[in-house]
Amino acid sequence: MQLGLIGLGRMGGNMRDRVRAAGHEVVGFDPRPEVTDVASPADLAAALEAPRVVWVMVPSGEPTRSTVAALADILEPGDLVIDGGNSRYTDDGPNAELLSAKGIGYVDCGVSGGIWGKDNGYGLMAGGAKEHIELAMPIFDALRPEGPREEGFAHAGGVGAGHFSKMVHNGIEYGLMQAYAEGFELMEATPLIEDVPAVIQAWSRGTVVRSWLLDLLVNALKEDPHLADLEGYVDDSGEGRWTIESAITHAVPLPVISAALFARFASRQDESPAMKAVAALRNQFGGHAVKKAAGPAGAPGDHAGPSSGAGSTH
Amino acid sequence: MQLGLIGLGRMGGNMRDRVRAAGHEVVGFDPRPEVTDVASPADLAAALEAPRVVWVMVPSGEPTRSTVAALADILEPGDLVIDGGNSRYTDDGPNAELLSAKGIGYVDCGVSGGIWGKDNGYGLMAGGAKEHIELAMPIFDALRPEGPREEGFAHAGGVGAGHFSKMVHNGIEYGLMQAYAEGFELMEATPLIEDVPAVIQAWSRGTVVRSWLLDLLVNALKEDPHLADLEGYVDDSGEGRWTIESAITHAVPLPVISAALFARFASRQDESPAMKAVAALRNQFGGHAVKKAAGPAGAPGDHAGPSSGAGSTH
Amino acid sequence: MQLGLIGLGRMGGNMRDRVRAAGHEVVGFDPRPEVTDVASPADLAAALEAPRVVWVMVPSGEPTRSTVAALADILEPGDLVIDGGNSRYTDDGPNAELLSAKGIGYVDCGVSGGIWGKDNGYGLMAGGAKEHIELAMPIFDALRPEGPREEGFAHAGGVGAGHFSKMVHNGIEYGLMQAYAEGFELMEATPLIEDVPAVIQAWSRGTVVRSWLLDLLVNALKEDPHLADLEGYVDDSGEGRWTIESAITHAVPLPVISAALFARFASRQDESPAMKAVAALRNQFGGHAVKKAAGPAGAPGDHAGPSSGAGSTH
Amino acid sequence: MQLGLIGLGRMGGNMRDRVRAAGHEVVGFDPRPEVTDVASPADLAAALEAPRVVWVMVPSGEPTRSTVAALADILEPGDLVIDGGNSRYTDDGPNAELLSAKGIGYVDCGVSGGIWGKDNGYGLMAGGAKEHIELAMPIFDALRPEGPREEGFAHAGGVGAGHFSKMVHNGIEYGLMQAYAEGFELMEATPLIEDVPAVIQAWSRGTVVRSWLLDLLVNALKEDPHLADLEGYVDDSGEGRWTIESAITHAVPLPVISAALFARFASRQDESPAMKAVAALRNQFGGHAVKKAAGPAGAPGDHAGPSSGAGSTH
Repeated sequence: MQLGLIGLGRMGGNMRDRVRAAGHEVVGFDPRPEVTDVASPADLAAALEAPRVVWVMVPSGEPTRSTVAALADILEPGDLVIDGGNSRYTDDGPNAELLSAKGIGYVDCGVSGGIWGKDNGYGLMAGGAKEHIELAMPIFDALRPEGPREEGFAHAGGVGAGHFSKMVHNGIEYGLMQAYAEGFELMEATPLIEDVPAVIQAWSRGTVVRSWLLDLLVNALKEDPHLADLEGYVDDSGEGRWTIESAITHAVPLPVISAALFARFASRQDESPAMKAVAALRNQFGGHAVKKAAGPAGAPGDHAGPSSGAGSTH
Repeated sequence: MQLGLIGLGRMGGNMRDRVRAAGHEVVGFDPRPEVTDVASPADLAAALEAPRVVWVMVPSGEPTRSTVAALADILEPGDLVIDGGNSRYTDDGPNAELLSAKGIGYVDCGVSGGIWGKDNGYGLMAGGAKEHIELAMPIFDALRPEGPREEGFAHAGGVGAGHFSKMVHNGIEYGLMQAYAEGFELMEATPLIEDVPAVIQAWSRGTVVRSWLLDLLVNALKEDPHLADLEGYVDDSGEGRWTIESAITHAVPLPVISAALFARFASRQDESPAMKAVAALRNQFGGHAVKKAAGPAGAPGDHAGPSSGAGSTH
Repeated sequence: MQLGLIGLGRMGGNMRDRVRAAGHEVVGFDPRPEVTDVASPADLAAALEAPRVVWVMVPSGEPTRSTVAALADILEPGDLVIDGGNSRYTDDGPNAELLSAKGIGYVDCGVSGGIWGKDNGYGLMAGGAKEHIELAMPIFDALRPEGPREEGFAHAGGVGAGHFSKMVHNGIEYGLMQAYAEGFELMEATPLIEDVPAVIQAWSRGTVVRSWLLDLLVNALKEDPHLADLEGYVDDSGEGRWTIESAITHAVPLPVISAALFARFASRQDESPAMKAVAALRNQFGGHAVKKAAGPAGAPGDHAGPSSGAGSTH
Repeated sequence: MQLGLIGLGRMGGNMRDRVRAAGHEVVGFDPRPEVTDVASPADLAAALEAPRVVWVMVPSGEPTRSTVAALADILEPGDLVIDGGNSRYTDDGPNAELLSAKGIGYVDCGVSGGIWGKDNGYGLMAGGAKEHIELAMPIFDALRPEGPREEGFAHAGGVGAGHFSKMVHNGIEYGLMQAYAEGFELMEATPLIEDVPAVIQAWSRGTVVRSWLLDLLVNALKEDPHLADLEGYVDDSGEGRWTIESAITHAVPLPVISAALFARFASRQDESPAMKAVAALRNQFGGHAVKKAAGPAGAPGDHAGPSSGAGSTH
């Protein structure tokens, strides 16, 4: 079948390749002339036979919303728009309504797999009406990994369910990564473990913690056994935040996923204002030494052991 | 080669089968006559040619320590004891010293794989001297999964490093499980996701969160899509506790693994004394209604939404 | 001076008394005839000389928004509305704009003190323009505790700053309460402490942890030393949730306040879906016993100690 | 009465002053000649009439244990040793046994109040036998704050109960401080709050969060409104660690106190190995940019907002 694909970045470009490799015709649009197939979204629409399926793969938020709005004017009744980006699930209802007023269908589809998806296939979670899902199924089948459909694709529910699922997927991902990372740090902290990368690699088969993320950690440690070349600085791309916000709405406790998100926030601070306040309080009640921000730092003492100076009781 | 194996429970029994299937001779001892091969540890020692390798697979703590102590009297210089149970790594030093005084070697080996290990092989992390590891390598090779040795076995370091590695493995496991579980709960909480098991199954291939634990969750949800037959009651077997204790010793922050452990503690409480105290405080300062432990409960209100009764400001 | 006061519930009624006791004239409106001074908000406006100051003390959300909207039609240019309820700070901008279009001023004022405020005075945090704050200052002075003004009142910033401050105040409150509660639980858990209420009472003076909340806990334990009459069930009134949401917006890590909020969520669950999932996973990989939801429960074992059954390694 | 006091550091020196001010005779020993009253512990014993009461106020751990051991040789049957330092409660049993073998009594006493205790009095929590508590009561009364005895002193239970109580007190203290600190950071993060110190000072009276720690935070912010002169670096003195360890022993969930402890651990890390691992994983699966440890840093981007680069879906 034919597919229109808007957004040919790291993800979209790979997806074009994979869908084409499955024998479908893909017309891609991207503002960068060197990668685009057509000159404009309107040209993309013109190049496709009705009913058109147009997959949007651009950054979430304003870029996706404005792309959908533009498609509402360009496409025709009976066509279908799929938002495959990392949009917040709360964007899906308004997007669907906007298109529905023009007789255009809407499906939101969470896509997981990263740069490996081109070869491995992408895990897909879709939300929308049954007939829209079915219209796009050949594309879903092309994108998902080989094997049983249900192991790489789910029709999660109505509009919004796809992005909600992907949001939760990423929230879980935060927790998984932090769990491995904490274990890595603890093993690095003890002289007892002489070869941390070897231990982690030994978990690759047979163990309870084996996973694809573990395989990636093994890869990373092969390149840099102590991760000495990296900063402990971690961005976040929104889904973790939305997961916590959604949990608050539903009164669901998420201690692990929130801890993982907060660890990322903290990783990006040069100085923690909160810990300054704690340091200030300790100084106030106990006369505990504080480290002054400027000037030569004093000997930092043994960070691992608790301090127990004379008279430190309070 | 020959292996003596003490402890033929769920794990030990399967391991005997797997080692035998690899072509080795296994002499097993267990106090239960219906499963044991010999009548006593002494008979086990007598049935093996020196240098003997005796694998101990009994509950951690006192049972393991007393088994090791018994072997110190039964075995001969040049023999080797391997503790494959879930002992705390701090037990390994004393065990090794006790045996070393008799000229007997000691290796601690973390074993992961659960009931699936018999067929899949077990992930192994060993601590001890190089010559002891080498002596037992045919057994390690029999137990570990097929594939490259380094993907199922690691010589982690000296005595204690095997159990330390396994402890961290299990700490990570707690975090991973809790991450999936939180995602499951959040999806169950929203009507948007119409088929939670289908979404989770769709993560099996291609996604970032794919793992063996995920596959097991898919299995569990096939049997019981809402886990309606289960109580939210989770035991812990010690390694998670030791992981936190070790992290405290090394001043390593483990927010995720500790949150996972505490969630288990809380899961086993019918009533939380802490939350009673919070309820009492709210009642004291704000006149907020409290739920009395006895008698008919009042209408609990909407649990998901925050309460905002008139005059609830405080 | 004169004050119009809308909402005479637990908080509003007490505030009317306190402001009157300070020598001001208060005209109160409440839909309940037995407590109201006038028959309608319009009558309230008619009973006050311009420029009027009308304090709104009704539940947050829709009730407050609709009251403000009604006042926009009733009041006159130069009048001032103060929202003293627990509104989300994001409501303040729209409220202020609505009133500003009619020439009416707006101040948001966080009020803390609960049922004790009538006698002790209320801590106040106000947001708005300087001239509006000054117009209402005699009322703020009447409501706040005796002592220096700056110890019971702050002009925190522009519109919204008062409610933001109150939101953070309540977020902190969640954390403080949970900290005391955790300490209470730990002392209750050990036989070493023979008289937990006595220990907590001994913290009333001289210690680092002395506080008004501690005094309230002492009171609660005098009535019920083990809080045996209470359920560990704790509602939340929104500010804790908004605190976390705001922290996410600003990428501020709040591990303690979020943990306190999540503990409340968990306290209201009969069963934790997440812990069901963890129990299911443990059963899948390790054959660990699970507690079935229905039917007679098995012996629960020793909840405090980790389980270490034979062969429980995984 | 007479009191022997060993250890005249920041705490011990102040306590000597306070006990003397109450009219008692204090003989102090400290290795520093400029502060000591006698040349040796033996001289201290010689200067006191039997039954002697000797208060030990030296750093916890080895210094306290060796001091107690020395007193076991110097004192006589019927004498009493009080450990007022911040010893781990598990040290108390062995200390008491050592002394008991010589007929010498032992009391452990948690002391709170910091450098303010000299003037305000110290909160005291004692563990030991009733007759020993009574023997030292005049000293406890001299040290505790004025007011009812039960508001500044508790006989918490047998040997160890005093230090256990103090440990929990300090664990709570960690949680309280972190709660205030998180609120401070959140208010600092929003431009909405124009005067954070003013808001915090306004909580001094009437509010739910008023406390002595709050008063200290007000003091600190008066000196340095944004705490700009401080580093966000916070030591810990052991009690927080022991609190978590004890909670693990008793299977008590302490999410808030543990989060506060871990925030301190993290505050002392220049780089987080865990967050390096998370960064490495993100790079592996998504090609997300990582910050290299060495060389000129790239533009760090907007730390508060989530990143959402094109194709960042994974």
